[in-house]
Amino acid sequence: MIKQIKIRRSIRKYLDKPVDDELIMQLLESARLAPSGDNTQPWHFIIVKSELKRQKLVEVSNNQKWMLTAPVFIVCVADIRSRITDNVQMSLNEDSPQLELKQIIRDTSIAIEHVVLEANNLGLGTCWVAWFTQEEIRPILNIPADKYVVCILTLGYASESPKDRPRKKLEEMMHYESW
Amino acid sequence: MIKQIKIRRSIRKYLDKPVDDELIMQLLESARLAPSGDNTQPWHFIIVKSELKRQKLVEVSNNQKWMLTAPVFIVCVADIRSRITDNVQMSLNEDSPQLELKQIIRDTSIAIEHVVLEANNLGLGTCWVAWFTQEEIRPILNIPADKYVVCILTLGYASESPKDRPRKKLEEMMHYESW
Repeated sequence: MIKQIKIRRSIRKYLDKPVDDELIMQLLESARLAPSGDNTQPWHFIIVKSELKRQKLVEVSNNQKWMLTAPVFIVCVADIRSRITDNVQMSLNEDSPQLELKQIIRDTSIAIEHVVLEANNLGLGTCWVAWFTQEEIRPILNIPADKYVVCILTLGYASESPKDRPRKKLEEMMHYESW
Repeated sequence: MIKQIKIRRSIRKYLDKPVDDELIMQLLESARLAPSGDNTQPWHFIIVKSELKRQKLVEVSNNQKWMLTAPVFIVCVADIRSRITDNVQMSLNEDSPQLELKQIIRDTSIAIEHVVLEANNLGLGTCWVAWFTQEEIRPILNIPADKYVVCILTLGYASESPKDRPRKKLEEMMHYESW
């Protein structure tokens, strides 16, 4: 199996050590190559190092203090304008019903996981964080209302080595020929 | 960069050559290890080899004939019951508004992309197909109405070597400190 899939863990404790911009660029290059429906590439990534901004992002993330140990947050945003190009005003939130929103969340998630696996490959740790509301998180980074924040990816050098977490058995998730 | 991210292409033409069950199990093992919100693991995978069923799946996929060249379809399903455990009846479709549906689409997409990258690693080709409606696809495989089909992943040995497709530049998807 791909080593990066096997060794990946969600990291919630990081070393006080910066991450080179060159490495961050390599992470985003792996996102850039992700597949997406009709090649629409709806993803955007905001690199946040500012301590003040990271503090604010932690506050709206139910104050998960461990996040602040990560020197970099990558705020991962899906853009519905990759699919809906008219100029009708839109304000997306957690219970928006559009199919296009589902599609851009799907495609942006694929790209984010490329970043996660590539980070492992570069000796870096990450954690998906999505415990916030659109209404609270967007203003912190001036994100327009027609964008949807899929996650904050914390990024840095791990200072913990978590064990693997329990998983369902293959039999619980596999079906043959029919549900 | 991870080789599998770099060399991945969507494959739409397959050799007439079966895929060993052992390899399919290894693909699903890589899905099984994917991260998910609160470790809810909402994903299910239906392995479809039956020609009749594959034909029906192609029909509801806007009759994309190329799909039939793939000897295996993995129908990837997200289960909202991993998050909503009461027994209230639910029928999910393209414009359902629930936050939990967005969460399970996100997490199932992560697991699917693990399958895609691991398939590359095993010398296999795949293609995400999501051009169908829930209403039409579910009955074919007896999938209950409270499940959401995220994609059909076609699987087999590639009989084409597509060039890389155009991508946005990094500058078009990267932001520093703010949108």
